[in-house]
Amino acid sequence: MKKFINQPQDVVSEAISGIASLYPGSLRNIEGTGIVLRADSPVKGKVALVSGGGSGHEPLHGGYVGRGMLNAAVAGAVFTSPTPDQILTAMTSVDGGEGVLLVIKNYAGDIMNFKLAEQLAASSGIKISHVIVNDDVAISARENRRGVAGTILVHKIAGAKAETGASLEQVLELAERVVSNMASIGVALSSCTNPAVGRPIFSLGENEMEIGIGIHGEPGVERTKIKTADEIAEMLYRWVTDSLGLKKGDEVFVLVNGLGGTPLMELYVVARKVCELLNSDGIKKFRAISGNFVTSLEMAGCSLTLLRVDEEMKRMLLAPQATPAFPNLV
Amino acid sequence: MKKFINQPQDVVSEAISGIASLYPGSLRNIEGTGIVLRADSPVKGKVALVSGGGSGHEPLHGGYVGRGMLNAAVAGAVFTSPTPDQILTAMTSVDGGEGVLLVIKNYAGDIMNFKLAEQLAASSGIKISHVIVNDDVAISARENRRGVAGTILVHKIAGAKAETGASLEQVLELAERVVSNMASIGVALSSCTNPAVGRPIFSLGENEMEIGIGIHGEPGVERTKIKTADEIAEMLYRWVTDSLGLKKGDEVFVLVNGLGGTPLMELYVVARKVCELLNSDGIKKFRAISGNFVTSLEMAGCSLTLLRVDEEMKRMLLAPQATPAFPNLV
Repeated sequence: MKKFINQPQDVVSEAISGIASLYPGSLRNIEGTGIVLRADSPVKGKVALVSGGGSGHEPLHGGYVGRGMLNAAVAGAVFTSPTPDQILTAMTSVDGGEGVLLVIKNYAGDIMNFKLAEQLAASSGIKISHVIVNDDVAISARENRRGVAGTILVHKIAGAKAETGASLEQVLELAERVVSNMASIGVALSSCTNPAVGRPIFSLGENEMEIGIGIHGEPGVERTKIKTADEIAEMLYRWVTDSLGLKKGDEVFVLVNGLGGTPLMELYVVARKVCELLNSDGIKKFRAISGNFVTSLEMAGCSLTLLRVDEEMKRMLLAPQATPAFPNLV
Repeated sequence: MKKFINQPQDVVSEAISGIASLYPGSLRNIEGTGIVLRADSPVKGKVALVSGGGSGHEPLHGGYVGRGMLNAAVAGAVFTSPTPDQILTAMTSVDGGEGVLLVIKNYAGDIMNFKLAEQLAASSGIKISHVIVNDDVAISARENRRGVAGTILVHKIAGAKAETGASLEQVLELAERVVSNMASIGVALSSCTNPAVGRPIFSLGENEMEIGIGIHGEPGVERTKIKTADEIAEMLYRWVTDSLGLKKGDEVFVLVNGLGGTPLMELYVVARKVCELLNSDGIKKFRAISGNFVTSLEMAGCSLTLLRVDEEMKRMLLAPQATPAFPNLV
């Protein structure tokens, strides 16, 4: 294992401290808690968004903290949920009196700990709701779908809505509409190495790829010989468009996400084919982004997320944001 | 070699086509030329910036095309200079009558071809100047220093200056001031694989790292057993601050760049130590960014760039930009 680390057990806290050191005008961390929050927290009179989960998906979640997106991000150990007390501290630190929306990725550990924190906070008088992101359509039953790259679009859209001064109910309603109009699927060409473990979390043969991989290396739906970029792009595209029931005239936001170890040059090749397919199917592309937004450490791989947008989502996507990691929508 | 590609010889043209497909509101490409330019080119009444070089460093250069940064980016094959006719086409496509500044990274092939293109364009009546970026202080003689991650700060600052309506002479003067106040150095933990070659471009032992590596895998200054993140960060930091002669009270822009295959979590760990050292040396951090900005395909590694900023550079850094890849400065 060759990594830029000191002691494996210190990676997460040092990374959190690092992101806060990089962006002190916008972020601060609460020492020893794994929490990154807006430097100007609590923001009075607006709903606060709190998200988080295991580390190893950087820039998720800390990179999406800032005006117009998250108020706080809570990091657990690599690929491990944060604890209820961490989440509770984050909520109480950012609540500005209008309530807190928890954005939870659909993993058993996260669900359990975020809901427990929600109960604890409710007894302290904070208004709380949650939205569960489950965009990974590699799994057919919606209740079992994992939350993956589409999570950042929930952060962006719900965060912009909160910034308008909307109520907790209104922010929640929009966040849920995003979740129900969004689908993602990933593919891996290699594994990744959790620094705390020191060896790859799974193995793939010399010429193999795995479709439907999870962002913690959870098994996908098919392991197959590697195909061309165009074949892979089309496979991801068909999976996502079929799942969403997209049809001619629909309009989508496109996210071609890198899992950490894939050159952007290759993501652009995949994106080219996706854009070509959208075009030939008469599906309008509202805006698109490609980069390493929700990663699995240094896993080689990518994912495609499509979000069927409506007018409100489009306005919220284009609203200003001041976070380290969400890109310009040009 | 497992990569998201179709035919190795088509990777660059498909990647260029991909970035243009992703961001059609801002960018367009000239089919078959490797050129990405602002969709609204030529912009009348303003100096135009043209940069480029070999592919494989994405999002450099195409990702920095847009209002406030580059007017055009010209891509050669992977790690190979674009040809003079490509560069000439880019210049003539974006010249808005106020001249063109070429931003050239200091490599023999790039220098030769950009200068040849400059001569060709001059005979057609376009006003042209060039700035040579040579920020890689792994090499002691300035004329031999390579252009690496700091290149994007030249794009940002000179691009913002051009956007103000400044003359070609004024834009050039500022670009040169950036170059002479900037230093970078990189470290690699692994090699990368050029898709046209199909095997790693160099090899590193199981526990080795190479300090001073170039972004095309050029030999560094020392190959050594891997050290801790803090030791590596301090080594990079000392090298850069000594080279710039930074002292207490100076103010810098900080760029902790990933070479493509290193998780952002690890970059944050390195950045934490860099920020700590700046702080203890009394050097003020103006703004900082960390991410995969100038890469070497999927090379595991990182680089540190420091730029000693003055008031004009600070204003230009904070000026708005509308590019796919330059981040918010928060």
